[in-house]
Amino acid sequence: MTDLSHLHTIVLAGGSGTRFWPASRRLLPKQLLSLALGSNGSLIADTVRRIEPLCPAERVVVATGAHLLAATGEALPWLAPDAFLGEPRAKNTAPCIAWATAVIARRDPKAIVMVVPSDHHIGEPERFREALATALASAKVAITTIGIQPTRPETGYGYIELGEPAGPSVFRVARFVEKPNRALAEEYVQGGRHLWNSGMFFFRAAALLEAVREFAPEVWDGIAQIETAARISAEAEAGAMREAFELFPSVSIDYAVMEKASPLHVVPGDFGWSDLGSWESAWELSPKDEQGNSISEHGVYVDAHDNLVVDLSSARREKVIALVGVEGLCVVQTDDALLVIPRERSQDVRRVVEALTLAKRHDKI
Amino acid sequence: MTDLSHLHTIVLAGGSGTRFWPASRRLLPKQLLSLALGSNGSLIADTVRRIEPLCPAERVVVATGAHLLAATGEALPWLAPDAFLGEPRAKNTAPCIAWATAVIARRDPKAIVMVVPSDHHIGEPERFREALATALASAKVAITTIGIQPTRPETGYGYIELGEPAGPSVFRVARFVEKPNRALAEEYVQGGRHLWNSGMFFFRAAALLEAVREFAPEVWDGIAQIETAARISAEAEAGAMREAFELFPSVSIDYAVMEKASPLHVVPGDFGWSDLGSWESAWELSPKDEQGNSISEHGVYVDAHDNLVVDLSSARREKVIALVGVEGLCVVQTDDALLVIPRERSQDVRRVVEALTLAKRHDKI
Repeated sequence: MTDLSHLHTIVLAGGSGTRFWPASRRLLPKQLLSLALGSNGSLIADTVRRIEPLCPAERVVVATGAHLLAATGEALPWLAPDAFLGEPRAKNTAPCIAWATAVIARRDPKAIVMVVPSDHHIGEPERFREALATALASAKVAITTIGIQPTRPETGYGYIELGEPAGPSVFRVARFVEKPNRALAEEYVQGGRHLWNSGMFFFRAAALLEAVREFAPEVWDGIAQIETAARISAEAEAGAMREAFELFPSVSIDYAVMEKASPLHVVPGDFGWSDLGSWESAWELSPKDEQGNSISEHGVYVDAHDNLVVDLSSARREKVIALVGVEGLCVVQTDDALLVIPRERSQDVRRVVEALTLAKRHDKI
Repeated sequence: MTDLSHLHTIVLAGGSGTRFWPASRRLLPKQLLSLALGSNGSLIADTVRRIEPLCPAERVVVATGAHLLAATGEALPWLAPDAFLGEPRAKNTAPCIAWATAVIARRDPKAIVMVVPSDHHIGEPERFREALATALASAKVAITTIGIQPTRPETGYGYIELGEPAGPSVFRVARFVEKPNRALAEEYVQGGRHLWNSGMFFFRAAALLEAVREFAPEVWDGIAQIETAARISAEAEAGAMREAFELFPSVSIDYAVMEKASPLHVVPGDFGWSDLGSWESAWELSPKDEQGNSISEHGVYVDAHDNLVVDLSSARREKVIALVGVEGLCVVQTDDALLVIPRERSQDVRRVVEALTLAKRHDKI
């Protein structure tokens, strides 16, 4: 068993979340919702609870947008105030992860870090933690990621191609592959040598910062300035933060660091993972009746099947939602909005948000 | 011009209205709704306003269920309290019309009566009143009805077959025809000799009561007892009412009287009539945008067409209703219920009411 006393976790909670409108909003992104998937807590609370058997709360930091600090803190009341790191501006994952890693390294120079998204669903937490333990052992020798065993020819994800074995259940990454077309995605699923990029990373803090310095010097410069200012005063640090996040390129950790780091390890994972990309995936994960309708205490279904009903309005205990003669619809209700969309079109929710933005209905987005 | 000084109107407002659930309820039937068809008032208020150029409010009576008296009175605040006649039990139209006619005859033995449903839509009120004037002239010599020029092979209505002409724009009724099958309905529309039964009747009060005595003696008996009791006291009348409505057969005026009366006249009418039988007809009558979606200040339509959105919830001014990638749906919202149903299935709304009744959700029906 790996020694986990220096394990720290970065929970990535910067998502802006238009894909679950009207449930998700600019100030209430997906990770702060429960999405009624059998948990009473938010996805981010589930995320932290899920890793706590490996990494206690006092060694968890949550990186989020400054405008989301208050709401994120409310979702995780058992974390200390200094667990929350607010980015002055969203600049994708590379600046965020580099900065959070630097903050952790200040606190614990020997830190081993795992980075987990805050808005995914994990069906089998025990198997998930087994994969984490494998990845953490690997992280002692190389930056490591988890790749998800693909279950369908998904064209919306990036893939990781497996290289040579590097240990039990660990492989070298041969290369990162951009989102493939359908034919290629089908090849990947059948070939068995490609995994979905999960956005989870495991590394020694020092190793990651060294890789940032080498492969992403424009990110490193900002981090170095923040670190220097932090040694002077909290005020100086805040000023350096603002300046650095203004200047950072907006770039993913995959592109800026992972695709260039060598060796890079990957641990195949198969633990009921879903990135919950749309209402479609919420339907897939929800408990359903014999007609494939999501089970809902207020739903009345007549000749209706394969529908998702989500009622997040404050009056929901009193509300009846009746679906008659429809199939494959998502019906989502909040206090101030109602969405009706076919499941297969659920990616197009963003077009509602665009329309509302154009109409200056900022109260609805 | 016919002398209208003895004209009285019976507005039939006994509808129980499950077909517009969730807007309509047991205690809020269709005639008390506006259904957002361009009027701010209820259908029953529109009905009374529409006939007032011919028949002033003081000669209008409204026959409704006793349990609906309060709500009906609120919808027609300019009518006197004695305009409202409450049936102790619903026994279809024959007992109701006979009784209301008897009440009118007490007040004005020379009364000419017109009977109009309270929950229809009339697109061209001026032409409607022209048809009424023709029917009222005819009513001096025979019980008269208005038949609607059919515009489609509707299988849900009864038809009236035209007989010999009986005057300008007036015909004898050859016979009443039950709801036809599709082939027959198509013949009727093309043949030009069949009209839809509108449920509107015009008669001298004395002539109708005489016809009831002759053709529906079991109804006549109850009416006679109420009339006798009314000469004693209001209390005696109320007692006789309860008893008579307990014993009345449940029978329509068409079946009990009209199909047997001879001569019976019919005036063809063509004035944008709709019986508003379902949400489908509400969509047909509603103002629509270029994509065929009902115009709604809170609607956001993305790739959606031919939909009806009705929001009757108290928060509707703040609510966004977004329809994406759907067509031909009715989406109807109230404070405590939401309905999603394809327009072409809108007759099946009753199945929701049945399901709610079975589930003892009496607060929702």
